[in-house]
Amino acid sequence: MNAKRIFLSILLGMVSIGMEARDIPFIGAQIFIEPGQTDSDVSGWFRTMKDCGMKACRIRMFESYCHGKDGWDFSLFDRAFDYAHENGIGVFATIFPDMEGNGIGGFKFPVDAAHEKTVNAFTDALVAHFKDHPALKAWVLINEPGVEGVLPDEPFTNARFEEWKKSHPHKTFTPEGYPVLVHFDTERFLLEYNTDYLASVARRVRAIDPAHQIHVNNHQIFRNAAEYDFPAWREFLSSLGASAHPSWHFGYFPRERYNLAMAANCDIIRSGAGPIPWLITELQAGNNTYSAFNAFCPTPEELAQWMWTGIGEGAGGVIFWTLNPRGVGGEAGEWALLNMQGGVSARSEVARKTALAISSNADIFANAMPLESPVSILYARESLWAEKQVQLGDLTDSDYEGRHEGGVMKSAVAMYQALMEHGLKPQFGEMGEYDWTREDNSGKAVIISGQVCIPRHYYASLRSFVEKGGTLLVEGLSFFYDEYMSDVFGHGFPLSDVFGATLEEVFCSPGDQKIDVGGRKMWVHLWEGILNADGRKTRRADHAYGRGRVVWIPSMIGLGAVRKGAVKKLSAIIRDAIRVEEQPLSFSRYGKGLSLQVLCSGKTFVSVVSNSGHQGKVVRIKTGLRRGKTIFSQAPDGKRCRHFGKYVFLPAGATVVDCWE
Amino acid sequence: MNAKRIFLSILLGMVSIGMEARDIPFIGAQIFIEPGQTDSDVSGWFRTMKDCGMKACRIRMFESYCHGKDGWDFSLFDRAFDYAHENGIGVFATIFPDMEGNGIGGFKFPVDAAHEKTVNAFTDALVAHFKDHPALKAWVLINEPGVEGVLPDEPFTNARFEEWKKSHPHKTFTPEGYPVLVHFDTERFLLEYNTDYLASVARRVRAIDPAHQIHVNNHQIFRNAAEYDFPAWREFLSSLGASAHPSWHFGYFPRERYNLAMAANCDIIRSGAGPIPWLITELQAGNNTYSAFNAFCPTPEELAQWMWTGIGEGAGGVIFWTLNPRGVGGEAGEWALLNMQGGVSARSEVARKTALAISSNADIFANAMPLESPVSILYARESLWAEKQVQLGDLTDSDYEGRHEGGVMKSAVAMYQALMEHGLKPQFGEMGEYDWTREDNSGKAVIISGQVCIPRHYYASLRSFVEKGGTLLVEGLSFFYDEYMSDVFGHGFPLSDVFGATLEEVFCSPGDQKIDVGGRKMWVHLWEGILNADGRKTRRADHAYGRGRVVWIPSMIGLGAVRKGAVKKLSAIIRDAIRVEEQPLSFSRYGKGLSLQVLCSGKTFVSVVSNSGHQGKVVRIKTGLRRGKTIFSQAPDGKRCRHFGKYVFLPAGATVVDCWE
Amino acid sequence: MNAKRIFLSILLGMVSIGMEARDIPFIGAQIFIEPGQTDSDVSGWFRTMKDCGMKACRIRMFESYCHGKDGWDFSLFDRAFDYAHENGIGVFATIFPDMEGNGIGGFKFPVDAAHEKTVNAFTDALVAHFKDHPALKAWVLINEPGVEGVLPDEPFTNARFEEWKKSHPHKTFTPEGYPVLVHFDTERFLLEYNTDYLASVARRVRAIDPAHQIHVNNHQIFRNAAEYDFPAWREFLSSLGASAHPSWHFGYFPRERYNLAMAANCDIIRSGAGPIPWLITELQAGNNTYSAFNAFCPTPEELAQWMWTGIGEGAGGVIFWTLNPRGVGGEAGEWALLNMQGGVSARSEVARKTALAISSNADIFANAMPLESPVSILYARESLWAEKQVQLGDLTDSDYEGRHEGGVMKSAVAMYQALMEHGLKPQFGEMGEYDWTREDNSGKAVIISGQVCIPRHYYASLRSFVEKGGTLLVEGLSFFYDEYMSDVFGHGFPLSDVFGATLEEVFCSPGDQKIDVGGRKMWVHLWEGILNADGRKTRRADHAYGRGRVVWIPSMIGLGAVRKGAVKKLSAIIRDAIRVEEQPLSFSRYGKGLSLQVLCSGKTFVSVVSNSGHQGKVVRIKTGLRRGKTIFSQAPDGKRCRHFGKYVFLPAGATVVDCWE
Repeated sequence: MNAKRIFLSILLGMVSIGMEARDIPFIGAQIFIEPGQTDSDVSGWFRTMKDCGMKACRIRMFESYCHGKDGWDFSLFDRAFDYAHENGIGVFATIFPDMEGNGIGGFKFPVDAAHEKTVNAFTDALVAHFKDHPALKAWVLINEPGVEGVLPDEPFTNARFEEWKKSHPHKTFTPEGYPVLVHFDTERFLLEYNTDYLASVARRVRAIDPAHQIHVNNHQIFRNAAEYDFPAWREFLSSLGASAHPSWHFGYFPRERYNLAMAANCDIIRSGAGPIPWLITELQAGNNTYSAFNAFCPTPEELAQWMWTGIGEGAGGVIFWTLNPRGVGGEAGEWALLNMQGGVSARSEVARKTALAISSNADIFANAMPLESPVSILYARESLWAEKQVQLGDLTDSDYEGRHEGGVMKSAVAMYQALMEHGLKPQFGEMGEYDWTREDNSGKAVIISGQVCIPRHYYASLRSFVEKGGTLLVEGLSFFYDEYMSDVFGHGFPLSDVFGATLEEVFCSPGDQKIDVGGRKMWVHLWEGILNADGRKTRRADHAYGRGRVVWIPSMIGLGAVRKGAVKKLSAIIRDAIRVEEQPLSFSRYGKGLSLQVLCSGKTFVSVVSNSGHQGKVVRIKTGLRRGKTIFSQAPDGKRCRHFGKYVFLPAGATVVDCWE
Repeated sequence: MNAKRIFLSILLGMVSIGMEARDIPFIGAQIFIEPGQTDSDVSGWFRTMKDCGMKACRIRMFESYCHGKDGWDFSLFDRAFDYAHENGIGVFATIFPDMEGNGIGGFKFPVDAAHEKTVNAFTDALVAHFKDHPALKAWVLINEPGVEGVLPDEPFTNARFEEWKKSHPHKTFTPEGYPVLVHFDTERFLLEYNTDYLASVARRVRAIDPAHQIHVNNHQIFRNAAEYDFPAWREFLSSLGASAHPSWHFGYFPRERYNLAMAANCDIIRSGAGPIPWLITELQAGNNTYSAFNAFCPTPEELAQWMWTGIGEGAGGVIFWTLNPRGVGGEAGEWALLNMQGGVSARSEVARKTALAISSNADIFANAMPLESPVSILYARESLWAEKQVQLGDLTDSDYEGRHEGGVMKSAVAMYQALMEHGLKPQFGEMGEYDWTREDNSGKAVIISGQVCIPRHYYASLRSFVEKGGTLLVEGLSFFYDEYMSDVFGHGFPLSDVFGATLEEVFCSPGDQKIDVGGRKMWVHLWEGILNADGRKTRRADHAYGRGRVVWIPSMIGLGAVRKGAVKKLSAIIRDAIRVEEQPLSFSRYGKGLSLQVLCSGKTFVSVVSNSGHQGKVVRIKTGLRRGKTIFSQAPDGKRCRHFGKYVFLPAGATVVDCWE
Repeated sequence: MNAKRIFLSILLGMVSIGMEARDIPFIGAQIFIEPGQTDSDVSGWFRTMKDCGMKACRIRMFESYCHGKDGWDFSLFDRAFDYAHENGIGVFATIFPDMEGNGIGGFKFPVDAAHEKTVNAFTDALVAHFKDHPALKAWVLINEPGVEGVLPDEPFTNARFEEWKKSHPHKTFTPEGYPVLVHFDTERFLLEYNTDYLASVARRVRAIDPAHQIHVNNHQIFRNAAEYDFPAWREFLSSLGASAHPSWHFGYFPRERYNLAMAANCDIIRSGAGPIPWLITELQAGNNTYSAFNAFCPTPEELAQWMWTGIGEGAGGVIFWTLNPRGVGGEAGEWALLNMQGGVSARSEVARKTALAISSNADIFANAMPLESPVSILYARESLWAEKQVQLGDLTDSDYEGRHEGGVMKSAVAMYQALMEHGLKPQFGEMGEYDWTREDNSGKAVIISGQVCIPRHYYASLRSFVEKGGTLLVEGLSFFYDEYMSDVFGHGFPLSDVFGATLEEVFCSPGDQKIDVGGRKMWVHLWEGILNADGRKTRRADHAYGRGRVVWIPSMIGLGAVRKGAVKKLSAIIRDAIRVEEQPLSFSRYGKGLSLQVLCSGKTFVSVVSNSGHQGKVVRIKTGLRRGKTIFSQAPDGKRCRHFGKYVFLPAGATVVDCWE
């Protein structure tokens, strides 16, 4: 396939993110509004936003600051909206009902019927008051839905759960006649409950304000993904968003993989959003003191990587958390993009520089859409459920990392990393979000890595996907359980004709072993699987089925490679297995810590290349295209990115954004 | 003493395990029976058992699968019993009453009076239904009694505890007049409660089925030993058994000492069983996925070691857990001897090979009895109670390993290891199980290591033991407390005339120190003790009393040696201290990871030699006997055991079973 | 300033501990009295005390041992008091009311009104019974007040807390108008509640016994300091005391810094006592077996260091815990100064030797007062409150040590260590205890290190302190919060004119980074701060204000230096910053593990030099004085301290006490 044909095929079909021509991505920030702030504080912050090229802010509309002597008093927020309008800033207004404690993350569900009433009254009054304000851009239904799987033990929630149980009686037997011992009631209820409650708030808002956008920002995605039914949310949302704070949310990964985790987070949201736009609704902007799990202060270079990762993934905008810090309490003085006196910082400078780079290239970004990858890495929420269900033993023993909570997601991200670091960004989403209905899957690949529990209703989709030309790569103990946690391989694996094998044995060995897997020595973490392929014992099966192919490696080579620093080899094995056609832009070879996102805007391609590693890297871009202008470039003090034709040198931490035609 | 005399003395007295000529040891496995299995599944498993030379199976008789539309419906299990009979397999039927959750380990005590009724009704119906089935071999009263010291907070248990307290009022003062501050109520009650409840189930079974054997399998022996009163159980049991799953139960030890722990586990059961037979009722057969604390998949070589360790210790049989995996839930697809499709595996092959080795040598095994060692290592359940009572501080700090829970048992096992690795297997049992009444203890030795709490009623027995010729080796802080947790050495140690000293000082130093102990530099862990022997300060006292001797080293040299890899030196010191007469078979020198069990069958001795270390070893057998045929030999793929006269080479992981005459 | 003038200024002003000529410091010990002890036991212990030169004992007056058939029966304790009198031993009698469990630490508050009654009745009876006994020296109100911040959830306490809340309604807004989100109710209540309850017991005692001293011993000082309002206690106490058991209380520090922690503990008590005398009321005397967090047995050398550290800090006496061990229960056989049979030990010998050294130099010690240092390290209880309030995340990750509980105190102690190891002992106390009212602070320095929360009411004091000539050194995130946990630096730092800067940015980086701080490469732990000094960004500001100076280094250089073993450099930086005038005695250079205390007795100075390091050290004393006699010297077996003029060689672990004139 020559270069011309590649581009043709891209223009005709591969670039199909499903969005219409749109506004250019905006940079924005939360403005934290609370009593005590002076008029000059507030006006100053909005002016600073404008100076930074920001187009949007988010405001947490505390119910507790809206209680006047004689009813509602929104004056604190009126002032902020007015300044927003003066400075050309659109407001994402977060409905933030009062609750005991007024915790950091805030309200998720009403506590009881009385609370539900006050929540509704506040919502109605708030929306009615601001719906005609010219600065209003969107309503954020609540802040960060998602409870990490733990149902609140409160009257409102309990009543709904009891009701749900009545209409969802336990099955006694699996379709095969085995007793059902595990029901995932909490998980299944929570999935619906989150959706239903958000939908009810959305209806409430819509009833009063039919005009403005409706948004919600999920969070802690690598855990909470299990309880988000994004496709169902599309019905009532104008856009979907993410809170993405490495210090709170990326604990599965070390700092040098935060940018990778950010990209995966973006991909998960983008996949969840489907045809509707998506945003980074909260991006860690500044320092942690005592708050957050893995506290740190991001460098300007990290902020540049995260913003451009978002933009490169097609985000409609990036909103920092937060421009100005909270004034009191557990997060006082933390998280700010500005310095402690509200002045500019190296962090706000890089935000300004990014906003300028975008607006200066509005012609490009107005039509830019992320290149759709032919490869999708899929996770199954049921795998997260099952993994959590079975936790046991010493959770600090890293020799068992793969079976601890997180093993499922880390396995999928290992595959993501292996492709990213070769400049071949895959999609990343939930199995239910994938389009299994295509008539031709030639050139498409799906990777299922470490997904220990796959519901049976996907079997037909997977069979059809391969039959119609798709390539399926299956890693680790994927498919070990179905939704009843049945012993799938013991009961006659229904996909054995598609996969060309069944799983005959699993050998658990704590830690990591170097083992021959299909002719190559690989690091295998914890679980080694042996297939039976027509009577032949093997650690890897390659099987043609219909017009497609399946490669099955039932050992944890993903986590093994990541843990032992052998991702390069993993990358080669995956690329070889999925044999994806050449992309318009990629790397000529694997590079640890590198990543590439590609936007396509008419005839122009925009590359976002980041180096999150600890060493400078010379990257050779593999492409038939010709390099155009450089849109953005950021490197640590005293260092800079340099281009030599299709080579680009990125110091450690650097990001460079180039045009190609 | 020449070789001839040794053998004579053995034939006359040393071999006196107290059992009559018996069946040869059998190999068997749990068959997990549950709805959903096809007729061909079940018949196939029983045929496979037969093909593997297995003679017994165990079946968990779930009450929950016996409820028909119109009362009891045992058809699911009828089918299994019929296939068992067809294939010559005897059934150990585990009474498994229903309970909420239907947990992995299952029922221990009724929850309340209503539950007691349904449990009894089920038991009666079950026993009545199967008592005449020709396949029935034994009833297993409940699965794995023992609650790791934690009383269930439930009406049935609470009522019995309250009753017990009435008849066991607290003592106010110790016999010496000190206030009693620690009562061990829970521990003392639990000891009786476990026994009483099991006895009541046994009576119930006997009332209906006077014929078949009655069995029970304890578990988690290194913790639960504290709550098992085995001698009391002998009254109602036909045989005593053990669940011995390294991944659940041997967490005190690293994998390379699992075979040692298996041997100690067997010894504890054998000591508990006394004159009645004993079995390994559950032996881990296959892989762990998410279940168990220290998950792993045993190798065929490990299975061979564990089976032969059991047989070498005199087990009446070894039942694997499990032939086929559970079909659903948290253990689905795990633990199986067969592969995931029910086919043979390397593990089932080694079981078959072992069964064949036994049946081919039925003449030998029919009369084989384990050689009784003149050395006994004793633990005191009260030491486990006291140790648990006082836990405090950071339990992850390995510098304090000896005072964490487990220190007591690990200290005793350290002594066991030191003798095992020189081919001098000692007995291992609870102090109350030892025969203190012998008139002549010449040639006998008792080792008390790390037993921090020894009740006063043993003082007379110990005095008499030494007086009548026994050798007593006392290590660590043994005897520090009595049953009231009194400061024994502060109140005039009553055994000071026997021991020839009293304990003057203890110095706690976290970690391990190399210290001169009685003329040899030893690693001492945590606690160093100084004796006062007639005014002389010393770290070791050697004292003659009556016709016997006491060696007292009140420092933790056992754990010190194990922690610092200096067991060879420890072994020399112990052997030198106890001066046991030469055994018919032993090793000519210490070998790390080695073990030797000896069975005696008429004029034939059978040696079981294992190498659990990481390196191949040439072992020189020290004996006056002549080597006969090799009964069994197992080594990892591509390696094999080799004999040269009295030398045998064992690759790492290997086991060899030889005859000697 | 020449040497003569230094000494003059010392005699005139610097030595002003505020105590009158006093008794020489005594050595004593707890005698643990309980039923079961024989008459000869008890009489023997008192004789032994006398033989050891001890002048005081402490006795825990268990209510539970005072209940006779017909009312109170104090005979058990009568006997002990009589023997005390016979042997010239004064008794510190600890009122020890009965409570469920009779725990190790004992009674803190009544459980409910009924309990309060029995507690009061016991107190009245006890005091009335013993008030005229000639051996009685002092009443200890309760044992170890302080609950590590956790209010007992019991009726008596709850009722008082509810009452307190009524009179302490929540503030809604800070003085600046910000909402108040953090109230520290529990902490503020506990501070008063501890004081009030102790005062009520003191009144009760005083009402019956107007004559004897009243004492109380706090404990776990590095945590409980937050709940002790020592200045308020002075009203009802004759002397203040400390329980100082490294194994229970010094867990923030490794063993080689226990002597440093002991010195800091003494300083905290001395600062709290102010004008009243203070004691070490409990000093760990012997071995731990199962009790205490960081169990160990102190060596005689450690005991010597701790005793002399106490004496060098001006303690009125040192009471060991305990002479004889408890006879039963969780601490049986532990903690004893004597050996297990009640005989002398190397530990009791060093106590005897110390008592003898003091009594042989009664002329010196009768008038000896500790040299008051011109440097004070201050902690703020509110910093401990705030730090505890915000704990989150993985508390085992040592990369975040500085933000875990303890970071505040460890930061202050780091400064203390840096000066101690150069022979420049500072004072160490709570901010509220410092004398901010002096008209001239020339030559005085205050160090505030890691105190993240400083209440606003200190701002004026600090301003005035500097204005009037004082030097202030501020380290780490000190002043980050005020008492409302406001973002102080975001709201216009009110001391910016005094400090010559404001804090512009904080960068959190887990672990330790080597960074240029004001021209020197320093290890910075976790938090690096950037100041804005008149528009200039800097990591250190040096600012003159009034007649004084402020040095501000808003990065964690204290913990950084301690963690990375770079205290020598830290010491140089601090000494350079505070420029304290030359002291009569100090070290000519920094020495790791060294410490120096100085007593002043007329024209004689007494130096206490300790070497707590792992290596012998030659110390050169920097002084204009001439060395006189050596009062005490202790070194490990086979080693000894040696003098050569102003040089002294101290083997590892040694202590030497010299006179200088």
